Amino acid sequence: MTDQNPLVVFTPSGKRGRFPVGTPILTAARQLGVDLDSVCGGRGICSKCQITPGVGEFPKHGVTVAADALSEWNAVEERYDQKRGLKPGRRLGCQATVQSDVVIDVPPESQVHKQVVRKAASARAIVMDPATRLFFVEVDEPDMHTPTGDFERLERALREQWEVDGLRADLTLLTKLQKALRKGDWKVTVALHRDHQASKSTIIDIWPGLHEAGLYGLAIDLGSTTVAAHLTDLETGEVKASSGIMNPQIRFGEDLMSRVSYAMMNPGGEVEMTRAVREALNTLAEEIAKEAGIDAALIVETVFVCNPVMHHLLLGIDPVELGQAPFALATSESLSLGARELELTAINPRAQVYVLPCIAGHVGADAAAVALSEEPGKSEDLALIVDVGTNAEILLGDKTRVLACSSPTGPAFEGAQISSGQRAAPGAIEAIRIDPETKEPRFRVIGCEKWSDEDGFWDETAATGITGICGSGIIEAVAEMRIAGLLDPKGLIGSAAQTGTDRCVPEGRTHAYLIHDASAEGGPRITVTQGDIRAIQLAKSALYAGARLLMDERGVEKVDRVVLAGAFGAHISPLHAMVLGMIPDVPLDKVTSAGNAAGTGARIALCNVGARKEIERVVREITKVETAIEPKFQEHFVNANAIPHATDPFPELGKITTLPDVSFNTGGDDGAEGGRRRRRRRA
Amino acid sequence: MTDQNPLVVFTPSGKRGRFPVGTPILTAARQLGVDLDSVCGGRGICSKCQITPGVGEFPKHGVTVAADALSEWNAVEERYDQKRGLKPGRRLGCQATVQSDVVIDVPPESQVHKQVVRKAASARAIVMDPATRLFFVEVDEPDMHTPTGDFERLERALREQWEVDGLRADLTLLTKLQKALRKGDWKVTVALHRDHQASKSTIIDIWPGLHEAGLYGLAIDLGSTTVAAHLTDLETGEVKASSGIMNPQIRFGEDLMSRVSYAMMNPGGEVEMTRAVREALNTLAEEIAKEAGIDAALIVETVFVCNPVMHHLLLGIDPVELGQAPFALATSESLSLGARELELTAINPRAQVYVLPCIAGHVGADAAAVALSEEPGKSEDLALIVDVGTNAEILLGDKTRVLACSSPTGPAFEGAQISSGQRAAPGAIEAIRIDPETKEPRFRVIGCEKWSDEDGFWDETAATGITGICGSGIIEAVAEMRIAGLLDPKGLIGSAAQTGTDRCVPEGRTHAYLIHDASAEGGPRITVTQGDIRAIQLAKSALYAGARLLMDERGVEKVDRVVLAGAFGAHISPLHAMVLGMIPDVPLDKVTSAGNAAGTGARIALCNVGARKEIERVVREITKVETAIEPKFQEHFVNANAIPHATDPFPELGKITTLPDVSFNTGGDDGAEGGRRRRRRRA
Repeated sequence: MTDQNPLVVFTPSGKRGRFPVGTPILTAARQLGVDLDSVCGGRGICSKCQITPGVGEFPKHGVTVAADALSEWNAVEERYDQKRGLKPGRRLGCQATVQSDVVIDVPPESQVHKQVVRKAASARAIVMDPATRLFFVEVDEPDMHTPTGDFERLERALREQWEVDGLRADLTLLTKLQKALRKGDWKVTVALHRDHQASKSTIIDIWPGLHEAGLYGLAIDLGSTTVAAHLTDLETGEVKASSGIMNPQIRFGEDLMSRVSYAMMNPGGEVEMTRAVREALNTLAEEIAKEAGIDAALIVETVFVCNPVMHHLLLGIDPVELGQAPFALATSESLSLGARELELTAINPRAQVYVLPCIAGHVGADAAAVALSEEPGKSEDLALIVDVGTNAEILLGDKTRVLACSSPTGPAFEGAQISSGQRAAPGAIEAIRIDPETKEPRFRVIGCEKWSDEDGFWDETAATGITGICGSGIIEAVAEMRIAGLLDPKGLIGSAAQTGTDRCVPEGRTHAYLIHDASAEGGPRITVTQGDIRAIQLAKSALYAGARLLMDERGVEKVDRVVLAGAFGAHISPLHAMVLGMIPDVPLDKVTSAGNAAGTGARIALCNVGARKEIERVVREITKVETAIEPKFQEHFVNANAIPHATDPFPELGKITTLPDVSFNTGGDDGAEGGRRRRRRRA
Repeated sequence: MTDQNPLVVFTPSGKRGRFPVGTPILTAARQLGVDLDSVCGGRGICSKCQITPGVGEFPKHGVTVAADALSEWNAVEERYDQKRGLKPGRRLGCQATVQSDVVIDVPPESQVHKQVVRKAASARAIVMDPATRLFFVEVDEPDMHTPTGDFERLERALREQWEVDGLRADLTLLTKLQKALRKGDWKVTVALHRDHQASKSTIIDIWPGLHEAGLYGLAIDLGSTTVAAHLTDLETGEVKASSGIMNPQIRFGEDLMSRVSYAMMNPGGEVEMTRAVREALNTLAEEIAKEAGIDAALIVETVFVCNPVMHHLLLGIDPVELGQAPFALATSESLSLGARELELTAINPRAQVYVLPCIAGHVGADAAAVALSEEPGKSEDLALIVDVGTNAEILLGDKTRVLACSSPTGPAFEGAQISSGQRAAPGAIEAIRIDPETKEPRFRVIGCEKWSDEDGFWDETAATGITGICGSGIIEAVAEMRIAGLLDPKGLIGSAAQTGTDRCVPEGRTHAYLIHDASAEGGPRITVTQGDIRAIQLAKSALYAGARLLMDERGVEKVDRVVLAGAFGAHISPLHAMVLGMIPDVPLDKVTSAGNAAGTGARIALCNVGARKEIERVVREITKVETAIEPKFQEHFVNANAIPHATDPFPELGKITTLPDVSFNTGGDDGAEGGRRRRRRRA
């Protein structure tokens, strides 16, 4: 021993400092700002502060650690170990005290700000720092000589023991405060919600003694069609259960504008729709809690992302202004609410709700959530992020500037308004290839891994049958038809004579391409009609025009990469999307799927309170582009109508040998497009 | 004209400054910090900024004002005058501009911080500065090129036009925001509530265009027996209507402790009592608004004062802890709540509620309100303030220090537990005199100005009859009985033989004094029984002992003045109270009545937001004395049981010639008391 106090080095942070002999490791960690958890504040009862002391030489840190560098295993640790079990080598940081130089490892589960691993390699990590956390606290008993309220003594205890300022509690909490304090013998655990905009903390709930059942949050992606929720452990970030239900507002209108119309035409219609969605949210919360096997009253936080119309209908605001120029939102900023205000009665009555900010009247909190998840504003290269739903939300940007718009693609990409279209469900064709020689199709349906020309396909799909085409299927069908020479650049389906296949069948004054015919057995006859092609052309033109408009605003002719977000984006074939002209051309390996990026954004805002501040800032800085008033949008829209497949060859495209050189046009207006046709070799 | 800008002098403030020719008077007033009202912000539509320019010589200000010192009467003023009428000589401060030196008088009704005159000369003035005020504002229309929410544009307008920061609005306000903005053509009036603890302003309501129907508040004194409300104009401070109803909790128990017992004995009993009082508050609010002829939705503020048990039952908190030592309040600090949290549905749904802080478990927000109204902490001399109800709240202090306690007087002073007792209502004996020679009583009843020995008394009271004795009546009766020699110092009523009057009638083993007998006509027989005397002795001993305890704490043997607060205090005879030994002896002219000081405190907190901060500070600084744990309280209580009349002569006492020298004691324990008897002369 030297004259100096012993040195304590923490890993992985590398933080170090000298402390007097006898200092608890938890105290040393706190003084150094080391991220070591503790709910009980060092009373040896919560076991959150587990650490692993090293022994031996640590040349990296210049420390030799003796076997007795920490105090001896004590009675508190012994009791905890017998009761719950401590992993070998672990100590309780609040019990073990410094005796000589020591290296202390803080395992990930003992860190407050844990990193939650996300599956995709490119995805940002979520650092746990939820708005609501547990605090164990000992409160002074009342004293008649200096009378103060129980709440005021709890307030003082939280200030002294946890440095909590600006404490609030609503009446329903005050009604249970006195019983909890007495039942816990003046020791209680409180769940405290920190407001990220004001320095105040609100007591969400209180439990006698140490509360060990955890806290949970819901990240909810409130879509026009489906409502998806992730039940998340607010301590670990673990998703305990995910569940989705149909948005019951569908009965008032399939798409957003029909719901706005319903509100306009029916006085009180918006109230009906609000009630419907709130009831559904309660059902969803109950079900997901049941699925995860937790008490729904432990759900203390809920984060919502949604488009502007869903946003207003969730909040109980008439969406009528969103149906007409200038598309004014009642409020665009983020909202921090009580669950009660939204009538979310299934969860904790004092649960807090956070609604992400909207970007503009057409670009909602869902787009903000995508921006939070995908972080275009931190991108080195220029990224185009497309979230396709009934509306497409489009973000374009890099770290210098981010632009956003929405584009009215309509529901065709979701299989709606397509003759054989259906939602993504078992039996739906989700992928299709057309042999350029024989013009024969082969396909895959949801619920079966095999292609239709593989052995066993028909057996495995016998139960569901082939029921229709979903969004990703119709995109592939149209693109493949073009590649196989069944469509001309303007999107006209050729006749059997023109295309050389009987699958091109007359339908009225146009033709349709027959994919599958089970009508002899009373099953469906699945075709792609000329009307389907037109619907997809309108949708993809709108999407492309939106992207182009942002590129114009940014003054670029091309983007570096494309991110497809949304459930749809996860299933779409980037190659076919590009053949179709849905998205600007980029090398295929620069097209990635972000999965449900909006839902991920909701989870990030749920798990990290700082992310709320971040997205509020990001949204303020985004350049908003309104497609409805930009003349160039119409121009791009019209120009994007053709299906040129692409200006560059796609060597990745599997079985294509040559590009067909056909035109079904009877008129002569195909010149420019015809000149762009070219041959292509098999990869 | 000189080179200098013209001089503008405002009266009555005397504020002055030079302003360029063409400066509107309102602008000059604002720059000088002159208190000149304006709701519309100088748009010439609200007419709040009326001023009266002077003309001629103003030697006091060193100014000569030319006839054309202000700009000419303009079209806006002409239109307003034709529509509503302007008083002669008045101008609109936002329209009239400075042309040359001028003296401007701001009439009281144009001042924001008007002083509200209170009746009692000693009473503090109420300066109007309510938490909720109206602001007229012009909001930018939405612009698709820079999309922002309507709320955010309203926020910006309020910041730019009224310097309002930290704007909040709840969901119910957001649902009506868009319609109001469009109906008002982007001009709206908002009622803004300023939080006195945080720098935030909450929109309570919004109206298209200029809202001219005013804003109102309720000051509510929630007593155990009665609930009294004052409906107050938040602009002028005028009380538009006052109303009171019985507290429906009486059916669960007459006094506080019986209600606490009800909650202890009946699970959910506190919920029942909370529901009952909230329903009554809604009824009261509806009735009082109807009486004043205003829309109850214009009631945007409510202030409550009440004792701790009423406080908890109003808030929905189980009062059980208040029924046993250590008498811990759930919360003692002031509360700022939404009316909805208290289920006050009759008033504006976003109305704000302020509940004054409690001083201690026995000394409630009502005592705090008395402290706010009577300001013992600003008193030069030592004041004893007594608010008598079922409990007596007692404050003792001067500007150096204020002490407070409560004393369990029981309901005897309110006429309860008295054989012929009743509440103060027409027909109740409220004053009584007993002739010391003849021992005959004469009395006055509520509802008739005459004494019973005056002509016409019996005709005028024929309708109500003589129904009983109220609180002030029983105090006078007992004191007068003592003075007339019908009682000995220990409170024993003498027999007819001892007292020489047939009015002393046997009743069981003791005697009663007959005041009025209508039993022959089937009416009541009103007596003061030995039991009544004992009840009053207990009550007055408790009150006196509480006051003495505070005097001990303060280290004084006497006080400089006594203030009797409460409805009861307003009717009690100070002289008789002192004869009885309810309050310490002071010269009679040093006993004043503060009327309903708790209700006044509520009105002050309603009209002036700064008073809320003040009382919160005052309450923190008050020394709380708990009578239940002070051994000296019991000692004082026992010692105060006798009725010595007083230690000093009362020359003010009307018809008394001599003090009787009687004792009915059969035992010999009257020595000390007997030695204090003395004679007294008529004034």
